[in-house]
Amino acid sequence: MAKNITPRSKDYSQWYVDIVREAKLADHSPVKGCMVIRPNGYSIWESVQRQLDKMFKDTGHVNAYFPMLIPQSFLEKEAQHVEGFAMECAVVTHSGLEPDESGKKLKPKGKLEENYVLRPTSETVIWAMYKNWIQSYRDLPILINQWANVYRWEMRTRLFLRTAEFLWQEGHTAHATAEEAVAETIKMLGVYRDFAENYMAMPVIHGLKSEGQKFPGAVDTYCIEAMMQDKKALQAGTSHFLGQNFAKAFDVQFQTDHNSLDYVWATSWGVSTRLIGAIIMTHSDDDGVVIPPRLAQWPVIVVPISKKSEERAQVMPAVDKLVQELKANGTGVRVDDRENVTPGFKFAEAELYGYPIRVEIGPRDLAEGNCVVTLRHNREKSTFPLSGVAHEIPRLLDRMQNDLFESARRRMVDNTCKIDSYAEFKEFIKADGGFALVHWAGDTSDEKRVQEETKATLRVIPMEGEKEPGTCMLTGKPSSQRVIFAKAY
Amino acid sequence: MAKNITPRSKDYSQWYVDIVREAKLADHSPVKGCMVIRPNGYSIWESVQRQLDKMFKDTGHVNAYFPMLIPQSFLEKEAQHVEGFAMECAVVTHSGLEPDESGKKLKPKGKLEENYVLRPTSETVIWAMYKNWIQSYRDLPILINQWANVYRWEMRTRLFLRTAEFLWQEGHTAHATAEEAVAETIKMLGVYRDFAENYMAMPVIHGLKSEGQKFPGAVDTYCIEAMMQDKKALQAGTSHFLGQNFAKAFDVQFQTDHNSLDYVWATSWGVSTRLIGAIIMTHSDDDGVVIPPRLAQWPVIVVPISKKSEERAQVMPAVDKLVQELKANGTGVRVDDRENVTPGFKFAEAELYGYPIRVEIGPRDLAEGNCVVTLRHNREKSTFPLSGVAHEIPRLLDRMQNDLFESARRRMVDNTCKIDSYAEFKEFIKADGGFALVHWAGDTSDEKRVQEETKATLRVIPMEGEKEPGTCMLTGKPSSQRVIFAKAY
Repeated sequence: MAKNITPRSKDYSQWYVDIVREAKLADHSPVKGCMVIRPNGYSIWESVQRQLDKMFKDTGHVNAYFPMLIPQSFLEKEAQHVEGFAMECAVVTHSGLEPDESGKKLKPKGKLEENYVLRPTSETVIWAMYKNWIQSYRDLPILINQWANVYRWEMRTRLFLRTAEFLWQEGHTAHATAEEAVAETIKMLGVYRDFAENYMAMPVIHGLKSEGQKFPGAVDTYCIEAMMQDKKALQAGTSHFLGQNFAKAFDVQFQTDHNSLDYVWATSWGVSTRLIGAIIMTHSDDDGVVIPPRLAQWPVIVVPISKKSEERAQVMPAVDKLVQELKANGTGVRVDDRENVTPGFKFAEAELYGYPIRVEIGPRDLAEGNCVVTLRHNREKSTFPLSGVAHEIPRLLDRMQNDLFESARRRMVDNTCKIDSYAEFKEFIKADGGFALVHWAGDTSDEKRVQEETKATLRVIPMEGEKEPGTCMLTGKPSSQRVIFAKAY
Repeated sequence: MAKNITPRSKDYSQWYVDIVREAKLADHSPVKGCMVIRPNGYSIWESVQRQLDKMFKDTGHVNAYFPMLIPQSFLEKEAQHVEGFAMECAVVTHSGLEPDESGKKLKPKGKLEENYVLRPTSETVIWAMYKNWIQSYRDLPILINQWANVYRWEMRTRLFLRTAEFLWQEGHTAHATAEEAVAETIKMLGVYRDFAENYMAMPVIHGLKSEGQKFPGAVDTYCIEAMMQDKKALQAGTSHFLGQNFAKAFDVQFQTDHNSLDYVWATSWGVSTRLIGAIIMTHSDDDGVVIPPRLAQWPVIVVPISKKSEERAQVMPAVDKLVQELKANGTGVRVDDRENVTPGFKFAEAELYGYPIRVEIGPRDLAEGNCVVTLRHNREKSTFPLSGVAHEIPRLLDRMQNDLFESARRRMVDNTCKIDSYAEFKEFIKADGGFALVHWAGDTSDEKRVQEETKATLRVIPMEGEKEPGTCMLTGKPSSQRVIFAKAY
């Protein structure tokens, strides 16, 4: 167990804080509620971006960029939207700074005619532009994504999971029919699910949010929910069918192919740097970060072992050869050839930072034509002939990717329980039991009551699974299917 | 000549406005001074990012992300820095919005204890973090880059070239010695020059800025300057040696390898979405955008020609085969298979949007086993056998890349003149002659005088070229080398 990292068994919450700090993933900043994403953390975001961007483009989307400032009056146009975001806005009221009376400090200079807010999300400014770009059905669909920073004032922050500023992508699409927009919403939910399961190695439940939990301005919000190691839920991505709400707020009508006028149908969907927190909390252990190989910038780290310079002269050509072979088969690799630190220090750092595979090459192994390969996630250590190891490594990485998914899936399955009475439910949640599969027919105020009494919230109405009829655990009303309640991040 | 595009010969400035609008590169937004980068423009930025990011990583840099809000007090810490940016800051003074007295509109709610500004550049917030990260020479160098949005209030805007918000990258490095920091500054200038010349096909003059033109807070500012088609200069990238200015402002000291304490040495360097404007203004023509092949997301567009569905059934397999072959050799390709627009419309649009190579495949050519290839930049049209065209295209793209560079280089050489008297200089600048190579020994107030009298500014003190002694054209003082004055964007 690494020093300075509290074990998960002792205090999961502190463990997360320690991991993020010690692995140099992120840091608190002098700006209240805002984080600094350090290179080790940002490299995970770059892998997330690279893969998701490819998936967005493969499904016909293009990227664009809209202003980060939103006129205050725009927010006011959609009633639910403003209600959802008004309290979290950072407000720009002035332009320029000038010396104050003392001449030593600065004060804001020109008061603006209209205030701006930093975008908490971009529906309003984007639909103000779509109004100019959409006249006829021939201009549809618009399938645009934006990679951007957003700002939502937060008092209680947690690095990656909840900060005032965060990085994300937000897709904003415009369609001629409701059917097409709903299909897009569900398609992008599928992309998120595919990404979570096959790249993050994180199984998810996909489905609908309840009325009380949906996006301000949405008709329907779909989501993927994952279970962290402490059995709490984490919302990992959302995809919204916005109906004609924003088209009506910004008066975006188009000429249909039947020569009538109609409002445009909309979707929006997003994931954020919160996914970095999800990766850490799903896979990492008491020694440091565990990164799924498909999202590791450097899946392999090679540590040459040599005490004397003659040994180094022997070892380095073998290291270089292996690096060339790995690069040739498309495997990212880094060599830790620092001379002023011990192999033991390098090993501990490689575990802390989460390189999926560590290869050691020393004079003794080399004499036998071998190297030693260690898998990060289970510490499995094997000796491989140097001649074949470059071809073996992709197979090992695939196995590790599968292992990580399987172990997370097992955890979710083992900690998801059908529960039929509210008394039992309260026990289950109090004991941090995981996901409660319960029959539900309550309304938003019933959800609030459950939250106040147990801290659990309705996470998702699953789209798959049995549609068995039953009785709402709280209200006793008839229910057509089970939903998932859990404590959540 | 495309409709709606003013010819360059008639009004270059209007031509630029028309090109940006008609090719759907960018749009004005409802937020004063801010642009929307549309997908056609953003795809160029993505190519710029992809290549530059690779070059940064190849030179040992890593990416990170710092907050976009900067505490007002941070700006005050470096005297030149605050003087340079105070007037351009957008100031955040409140958090949250609440209903006003009328109950119909919103007003800012909580006044902040300390105001924030939107980053005009990130030296201050980054050096506040470096203070925590740097204790000893072992922590150095730090070689960090950030891709981000920045904000500098602007009254007179021009899409891509000068807007309030823009996208950029900013490198911020920390070093143990002045020599190392200067070497980094010049290395990154070299990366920018390499990128400008070999990817943007845009020749540049590289060198130093004068005292009056350097970055607020820098000891020395290096830059690359390019010549646009109207012979005006455009600053395309800057690299700053910051000395110990920011380390002193934020008290960042480190233990040296001689066990003494010293302030850390710094550099910063950046290029922005302004480069998109530079690409347009260097290569495009009266029919639309011309994009250098190495920065085109889709270097090739294939237009199938078929009037009837039987023809389509013949043509499409040949199109698909070509697309597969091009993808196999790594060439990006898009097919325009829309059925509701004419080939003529498609050709004009392909020219407007700037696809470097257009391939037409129709039944008549197909019968002879051929296709027709048109190069965007010179309209050269040739017939190639379908069997070999996929291998020919990369060669054609290389030639086009070279042609574009050569034609821009010729323009710069032809319009750079040695001038020895101020009278002659005034004539030259008045006639929009281009780059004036003049002897100069004036100070900042002399530069201001030249600017007021001619609108020309000192663009760059070239690092290469003859170091011939001479006499300053304005002051008559002795000068050791010529510098470049020009009108600039």
